[in-house]
Amino acid sequence: MKIAVDALGGDYAPSEIIKGIEIARDKYSDVEFLLYGPVDKIKPMIKNPTRIKLVQADQFIKMGDEPVRSVLTKRHSSMDMAAQAVKDGKADAFLSAGNSGAILASGLFIVGRIKGIARPAFTVALPTVKGKHDRFVMLDVGANAESKPFNLYQYAFMGKYYAQKVLGIDNPRIGLLNNGTEADKGDSLHKTDYQLLSHTKDLNFIGNIESRELLNDVADVVIADGFSGNAVLKGMEGTALSLIYYIKHCILSSGIGAKLGALMLKPTFHKIGNKLDYSKYGGAVLLGVNAPYVKMHGNTKSPVVVNTVGQIRTMIKSQTTDDIVNYFNAHAKEMSDIKKRAQNY
Amino acid sequence: MKIAVDALGGDYAPSEIIKGIEIARDKYSDVEFLLYGPVDKIKPMIKNPTRIKLVQADQFIKMGDEPVRSVLTKRHSSMDMAAQAVKDGKADAFLSAGNSGAILASGLFIVGRIKGIARPAFTVALPTVKGKHDRFVMLDVGANAESKPFNLYQYAFMGKYYAQKVLGIDNPRIGLLNNGTEADKGDSLHKTDYQLLSHTKDLNFIGNIESRELLNDVADVVIADGFSGNAVLKGMEGTALSLIYYIKHCILSSGIGAKLGALMLKPTFHKIGNKLDYSKYGGAVLLGVNAPYVKMHGNTKSPVVVNTVGQIRTMIKSQTTDDIVNYFNAHAKEMSDIKKRAQNY
Repeated sequence: MKIAVDALGGDYAPSEIIKGIEIARDKYSDVEFLLYGPVDKIKPMIKNPTRIKLVQADQFIKMGDEPVRSVLTKRHSSMDMAAQAVKDGKADAFLSAGNSGAILASGLFIVGRIKGIARPAFTVALPTVKGKHDRFVMLDVGANAESKPFNLYQYAFMGKYYAQKVLGIDNPRIGLLNNGTEADKGDSLHKTDYQLLSHTKDLNFIGNIESRELLNDVADVVIADGFSGNAVLKGMEGTALSLIYYIKHCILSSGIGAKLGALMLKPTFHKIGNKLDYSKYGGAVLLGVNAPYVKMHGNTKSPVVVNTVGQIRTMIKSQTTDDIVNYFNAHAKEMSDIKKRAQNY
Repeated sequence: MKIAVDALGGDYAPSEIIKGIEIARDKYSDVEFLLYGPVDKIKPMIKNPTRIKLVQADQFIKMGDEPVRSVLTKRHSSMDMAAQAVKDGKADAFLSAGNSGAILASGLFIVGRIKGIARPAFTVALPTVKGKHDRFVMLDVGANAESKPFNLYQYAFMGKYYAQKVLGIDNPRIGLLNNGTEADKGDSLHKTDYQLLSHTKDLNFIGNIESRELLNDVADVVIADGFSGNAVLKGMEGTALSLIYYIKHCILSSGIGAKLGALMLKPTFHKIGNKLDYSKYGGAVLLGVNAPYVKMHGNTKSPVVVNTVGQIRTMIKSQTTDDIVNYFNAHAKEMSDIKKRAQNY
């Protein structure tokens, strides 16, 4: 299998991207890489060229660039060329730590949506702190700032396949992120989705989920509109980071007893930090486009690249995208009916 | 000053409510209480009747009751009667730990909106972990599931007065909770609000705030739509609780070294727990109705009641509600113009 990699996206690119790719190459013998960027610059950084093919890209989409315009005009950028390789069948998947909006735009405009899917969604796996499963899937965490009920309805199927194929969860429990657990909670978007989801036989819909319970293994797939899904994800990340900062701050400003106590708890703190680090599950997948399409955080370093290559490899081997394509193909008529029904609520 | 208290709302009512009221009565010599509930039942629970007047209420709005219908039909409920006392000028403020939807409905239908304010908003003070100010204000955290740009615009003024009067922050920095910091981020609601807020002279608007940064003292007043504000608040609470649970779990399942370390860190953990406990700042204020109108958590025990009485006392003494009334009265014309402009974006 081949993964097209944008060598230039990310705060620590290209060095940390290349470092990660080389570690992943040594770890996974069945993966080849097409690496897009300025060959002159990146070639000397590569220790071993085995299964890494460099492809010259003359342009670069920067973090601050206007996403859609950049993707449409910078056709020789490392991102566009990596996307085009996927489109042309030269690579099986796409990977970048670059401009998030441009990754979304290149996914939509170059690789393209799966037939029948109205809106792709950014999808992440997050840790749980208790319960049977150690992870759950949440989508959309920010591809779409505005959403319609039909979009969230489709996310449920996309998320279901991802949870089954990548997380290995049979018959995943699907929950709707809402402001209360009762059926009539939320705005009209979420009320409508509750109705649509609870009348669908192909889904193990368990009802509304409140964000207070997210980390407690209450659902395997959490469906959210992209605006509040993004806000909740960032709020959770921020709270964890702020809390860790505050714990350190308190320990440092306390006496020798607390410092000694902290030293004795070091392995425990390490375990907690590792638990919360959801980049070990890989990046954010743009589910709903015609190939595994994965965005890493801007601050990505090599270990995240290795994890994300592992995640992409699982998606390719388990044919997650094909399953989604086949489902929407086989159920085109039902989807069209649901779309009409969604407008009537 | 007089506070009308619903003795029956909350999981631990009436005993913990009464206990809290008695401690607050002893703490604040200028506060009197009107306590609504079944006199036969609550009278024996009161140790000292000084400045606590019992008023018979024959009905009770339960947690699961349909809010609007209950408020409109159970006119002899402890909640309705407490609200009516405020409406009739017999009390200066309202306090309940009962059904949230019913508190909102009684505020709107019995006490009534401040003239010129389209939608009242639930408002909380939350802790920061760094920076100059140890608290910030966030609204709306759940009064309105659906919001229009004009609603969020008005929240900015309500939140500004609350931050000034209750938190004592001069010229508070107003931020808009959005999916990115750039001006063009978010859905049409938030894009429009960014434009409205950035063209207003009476506000110290500092732009968009991401939920990742909320606890880092980046704004004194955070404006949110009620759906995502509620989801982010609950996500932050849940993350803090889950993290604390997981830390305990890890320590308990570790060896003697970690347990000893935890013992030595006990004062530090206590400090952290205290920092995160935002009920020490009081309850959620329904800003935008004609009196201080405060909802406590359903699981409220006596210390929260004491804190919330202190918060209400500060609101009454500082005339927070009067200031909001006066501002909207003096700026009726501008508000009407903004409302029209908001529809044109």
